[in-house]
Amino acid sequence: MPLDARLDAQDRSFKVVGTRPSRPDGIDKVTGRARFGADMSAPGMLVGKVLRSPHPHARIRSIDASAAEALPGVKAVVTQADFATQDGDLHDTLINVMAGDKALYEGHAVAAVAATTTAIAQKALKLIEVDYEVLPHVTDVDAAMAPDAPLLHDDMVTQGVEPAPSKPSNVAQRHEFGHGDVEAGFAQAEVIVERAFKTEAAHQGYIEPHACLASVGPDGQGELWCCTQGHYMVRNTCAELLGMDISKLRVTASEIGGGFGGKTTVFVEPVALALSRKAGHPVKIVMTRSEVFRATGPTSSSSIWVKVGATKDGRITAGQAELRYQGGAFAGSPVEFGAMSAFACYDLEHINVVGYDVVANRPKQAAYRAPGAPMSAFAIESVISEVADKIGMDPVDFRLKNAAKEGTESAYGPTYGRIGLIETLEAAKAHPNYQAPLGPNQGRGVACGFWFNFGGQTCVNLNINVDGTVALALGTPDIGGSRASMCQMAAEELGIAYDNVRAIVADTSSLGYNDITEGSRTTFSSGLATIEAARDAITRLCERAAIMWGIPADAVVWENGHAKPAGPNAGDFEPLSLAEIAKVSGSTGGPIAGHCEVNAEGAGVSFATHLVDVEVDPETGATEVLRYLVVQDAGKAIHPSYVEGQYQGGAVQGIGWALNEEYIYGEDGRLQNPGFLDYRIPVASDVPMIDTVIVEIPNPGHPYGVRGVGETSIVPPLAAIANAVSHAAGVRMTQVPMSPPRILKAIDEAKANGGPGA
Amino acid sequence: MPLDARLDAQDRSFKVVGTRPSRPDGIDKVTGRARFGADMSAPGMLVGKVLRSPHPHARIRSIDASAAEALPGVKAVVTQADFATQDGDLHDTLINVMAGDKALYEGHAVAAVAATTTAIAQKALKLIEVDYEVLPHVTDVDAAMAPDAPLLHDDMVTQGVEPAPSKPSNVAQRHEFGHGDVEAGFAQAEVIVERAFKTEAAHQGYIEPHACLASVGPDGQGELWCCTQGHYMVRNTCAELLGMDISKLRVTASEIGGGFGGKTTVFVEPVALALSRKAGHPVKIVMTRSEVFRATGPTSSSSIWVKVGATKDGRITAGQAELRYQGGAFAGSPVEFGAMSAFACYDLEHINVVGYDVVANRPKQAAYRAPGAPMSAFAIESVISEVADKIGMDPVDFRLKNAAKEGTESAYGPTYGRIGLIETLEAAKAHPNYQAPLGPNQGRGVACGFWFNFGGQTCVNLNINVDGTVALALGTPDIGGSRASMCQMAAEELGIAYDNVRAIVADTSSLGYNDITEGSRTTFSSGLATIEAARDAITRLCERAAIMWGIPADAVVWENGHAKPAGPNAGDFEPLSLAEIAKVSGSTGGPIAGHCEVNAEGAGVSFATHLVDVEVDPETGATEVLRYLVVQDAGKAIHPSYVEGQYQGGAVQGIGWALNEEYIYGEDGRLQNPGFLDYRIPVASDVPMIDTVIVEIPNPGHPYGVRGVGETSIVPPLAAIANAVSHAAGVRMTQVPMSPPRILKAIDEAKANGGPGA
Repeated sequence: MPLDARLDAQDRSFKVVGTRPSRPDGIDKVTGRARFGADMSAPGMLVGKVLRSPHPHARIRSIDASAAEALPGVKAVVTQADFATQDGDLHDTLINVMAGDKALYEGHAVAAVAATTTAIAQKALKLIEVDYEVLPHVTDVDAAMAPDAPLLHDDMVTQGVEPAPSKPSNVAQRHEFGHGDVEAGFAQAEVIVERAFKTEAAHQGYIEPHACLASVGPDGQGELWCCTQGHYMVRNTCAELLGMDISKLRVTASEIGGGFGGKTTVFVEPVALALSRKAGHPVKIVMTRSEVFRATGPTSSSSIWVKVGATKDGRITAGQAELRYQGGAFAGSPVEFGAMSAFACYDLEHINVVGYDVVANRPKQAAYRAPGAPMSAFAIESVISEVADKIGMDPVDFRLKNAAKEGTESAYGPTYGRIGLIETLEAAKAHPNYQAPLGPNQGRGVACGFWFNFGGQTCVNLNINVDGTVALALGTPDIGGSRASMCQMAAEELGIAYDNVRAIVADTSSLGYNDITEGSRTTFSSGLATIEAARDAITRLCERAAIMWGIPADAVVWENGHAKPAGPNAGDFEPLSLAEIAKVSGSTGGPIAGHCEVNAEGAGVSFATHLVDVEVDPETGATEVLRYLVVQDAGKAIHPSYVEGQYQGGAVQGIGWALNEEYIYGEDGRLQNPGFLDYRIPVASDVPMIDTVIVEIPNPGHPYGVRGVGETSIVPPLAAIANAVSHAAGVRMTQVPMSPPRILKAIDEAKANGGPGA
Repeated sequence: MPLDARLDAQDRSFKVVGTRPSRPDGIDKVTGRARFGADMSAPGMLVGKVLRSPHPHARIRSIDASAAEALPGVKAVVTQADFATQDGDLHDTLINVMAGDKALYEGHAVAAVAATTTAIAQKALKLIEVDYEVLPHVTDVDAAMAPDAPLLHDDMVTQGVEPAPSKPSNVAQRHEFGHGDVEAGFAQAEVIVERAFKTEAAHQGYIEPHACLASVGPDGQGELWCCTQGHYMVRNTCAELLGMDISKLRVTASEIGGGFGGKTTVFVEPVALALSRKAGHPVKIVMTRSEVFRATGPTSSSSIWVKVGATKDGRITAGQAELRYQGGAFAGSPVEFGAMSAFACYDLEHINVVGYDVVANRPKQAAYRAPGAPMSAFAIESVISEVADKIGMDPVDFRLKNAAKEGTESAYGPTYGRIGLIETLEAAKAHPNYQAPLGPNQGRGVACGFWFNFGGQTCVNLNINVDGTVALALGTPDIGGSRASMCQMAAEELGIAYDNVRAIVADTSSLGYNDITEGSRTTFSSGLATIEAARDAITRLCERAAIMWGIPADAVVWENGHAKPAGPNAGDFEPLSLAEIAKVSGSTGGPIAGHCEVNAEGAGVSFATHLVDVEVDPETGATEVLRYLVVQDAGKAIHPSYVEGQYQGGAVQGIGWALNEEYIYGEDGRLQNPGFLDYRIPVASDVPMIDTVIVEIPNPGHPYGVRGVGETSIVPPLAAIANAVSHAAGVRMTQVPMSPPRILKAIDEAKANGGPGA
């Protein structure tokens, strides 16, 4: 795969890329024609329901399903014994999908039934007798790290520590990143700020609950329809959990009603397959909202300590942080990403970050938009602003002075190439919002954010129809407009109209493997593969034109959507359009297609600066967001409306997390707010218009300069709002969400200690 | 696309090809899990029903649908005005799908409704007022050719005649094939037989009626699920009929319950799409059996005259025939194929065949297994046997003496390469059935048959999963075991187990264009493309092995399912299996796939010899088939069980056509037997075990030697059975079907003219 033509885009003017054509899925979604996870049915279909543990931590002594199995209408009951044993990478996935000898969190699946009706299935769940031995539990990250904490896994010994600990603990792993000598750095500091922070777990809050329809035949061949961010991941994971060959399972991704990282793993899909295999009928499972909250993957909660030192003229001398992330009942919190990204916005000589991956009796966390980064940014950007305040420097200027740039050795290792952080800071400073006057109880906050952006395995087929239109088969579910942007890139490359390309998300048997739509990778990776597939097709088109003209294939070039004779043949023939070549393709060799299979490398890191004004009601502690500006480097915005949508969406989710959203656990270890009435995500009336500025510093690793835009936008909001609230309330807020009671409490405590303004 | 490696197979021993692994769709079909055309549903789905003309020929003065449209529950009514005007190739297709100013046959669609229930839709049909002016009609082919016959199309002037006729007629086209000088040939003859024959229209009799589910959104993007032999044909045709871009329509082929050529065009599919577009809901249409008989495409009926001359020592000196095929209300009967194949089994110096394509007030014919050939073979092979009888020569020996062979200039033009007719005759002669003693009223018949076999446009994607299993995406609906045989060819080429490959039929947006599964083309064309795709994947696998070993890609060869270092590196590394390379593909460049897009050429003609013994009850005219032998050249039998199934299926359909099946029209031009009670296809108890012998004379145009086996098997039965019945009854039968009344009548007439034995 020669990708040597990357970033040729910087020398070209775009015709389709950068425009804002209509969304291919827009009308389907507003008319209800789009088919989501719950919208598929099959003859003879059963309803699947999952029995979940009421205890946050309990030994399962036995499960007696005989009464449930005897209930008329019940066609199958499954427990963990119905899955293939997993010793490798999927060990925890299996146990999370279906508990074995222990229930590790309230809501943990312990059994499932398939029955002819929902009522029968629910009745059957009540007939399953689980003999639990209730164990002590822990849900808070700091409590889970305490030496006397209840242990979730008797065999968990902290990895990444030398020498290896002799005793098990709830700390799965220790990570450390940085460079230089922080002690020496702090010694140079004239101002040092050191603070501890906590963040609560938030849920991605996707509108569509997890849903799937599974069918496995007696011959072991299976089909699965489901809403997911990665149907190939679902296929490979489910095949292994069920002990099937990968080729025996065909997965089709439905339209998806939001994912934000939460649909990057499996929950009910293997359960539905196991039930179908046992029952001999298709089985549909649709989660309730309560199940989504209790048993899918929210973010980690965290406890973070940060120390930053600076000179009075605004040079940061050292940064240090300790991050403790609880990732639910299994190892794998995103603390590593949190630690890697902690000081990624800064060009610092001395950095040290340590992260701890902690387990607790909560649902296993899943990715949530830039997983791990918003929490560490919350802590570090709060302290950065506090240092700026202390030395009396404008927070943007302070960040500009210390900003990472081309050549900076990042906190996590790599040296940056061309990046756009400084441009985002300058654009924020130049924006009218930065000059808007503030009134009483109002405050302004600024924060920067970083995200890696990923590449990964991607396959694209591009098929040219005989009428000159194009069918583009993608393997990355479209969660943020990828069908539109891929059509734009294909149209751009082929030199045809956007409307002549239709992209679909192919099933797992029709197209080669694709990694999940996550890590802001899709516009980069599938875009790169789409461009490569288009170039492959162009090679074929030129060969066909050569046949039509009777000249050598290498005497044909592709320009402006046409094959043209070149070299000694230049001018001998009229250029042929794609449609003209396609029309006769049957007689020049058959159908014309382009393909690309790639493990895309060269993803470009991205940076953002957010600027927010809030007003805090000192009597209620309620915060109103007055203005919000997102400035972010997109590399190249393929479809600016979608890019702006990503900026706005990340900001709004960040506002929710910063001000309201949190998992509230009772002393009994049970989630107290598993519904949208009590877990309140922002609605339109809660937020102002989110202003956006798209900065475009091309990523040299992509032909058109694309970075990725989906995740960075949720990194700064917690910190930006914390800085704004702290300014408005006159008290430094160190816990997210900054709900009215917390703000009131902080104001009251500050008053007790000498009044706001401290 | 280098196909220079074709027929390498002749030098190799096969491991998977030629074995009989289990059918991948077998369990699904017997358990009811397979999803056919009627088995898909969608939220908000409506029922579509079609209003059909009760008249065989009538001018449509007006259609008033206002009362139907006003009926509660009716969401749309469409007429021809709801389709895009067609001036080109699809002009007749549109008019056949939905009548315009005339109804041309009983059952011709004139309008359609979509309603919330079947009852409402049927009620609505009755509320549509069509003002018909009934016109005179004609259904018999000879009557339709009469100068005073009612004209179906005022503007139809016979093509292929010089000078062009001045008057319109029901003869759409005249074809002529042959070589030499038949008058000179007949002058050399010592025996001449000259006879006229008639055949009635038969229906393919597929078990599954046409069914589809269509959905078109307000943005003009459509999806269609349907049972068809060619979903790309459906896509392209429907897109044009609806005035859509091809890329805007995505068609998925359901499992298919038989086609035999009858599902190679569109009937209700564009109607469902038009209804959905107008109603704004998904629309499902499922034809009734009566609709299938009255309004889909049976075979042509025919009227054929044949003259054959021979010397007494068994050398055929000349062959001549005139074929008149009525193809229903539109031009396009398969008379050209009938004429081309007429004397294709013989190596003759003097041949002349003329064919007439005739229209009549009957449903437009569709392809039926070797379209056009069984009728001409019936006539010609009857005469050939009669000549053999007259000169007292064994009918197999007579055929052997005149058989076409390598180097024969065919009747229709091309000179044959290596062919297998003689081998089939010799195998028939050597078979025990040829020596079985015959009792009273029993007779033996032999006949040969020929079919071209086609290639055509084909695309295949072959994706290698990370566990070493393979997903094979095909675009040719599987009507006769193609998924199994493609898996075998992929497994053979890759050197893996059959069970590690799973083939699916991809939708039209996921894979490039494929011609219809017809013309016995699929095992040849999709097989060739599968092998090429596998070889493409092997190239990739070798490249990856080279990366793993750190040696040049051209220093790796593929042997026995393993990459091996070659040349100077030979023996340096242990061979790597496909699974070992696949497992780490993510780190050696990404997913591994192979692709092929081709317009496959090099299809190999095929020949068969059938041998049948029958007993005719002289009192009832009923015929019992005692023994039946099919000997046919498969080129290479990929999956011998499926090949045998094709041989047996063609023979059984031929038995039905020969003895029972026919379209019976009343004087009123209405079909009198539109159901399986009155149109009787053979059931298992009607036929003996069909014995088969697979001859394998490799086709040099295919890497494994594949010809095609689906159609040739229906070419000889009409003639073979006619020869057997004629011998058993002592009277030459010249009309198909040889139903008991026809046989009794022939016996009675022969008695009146001097008794059986004449």
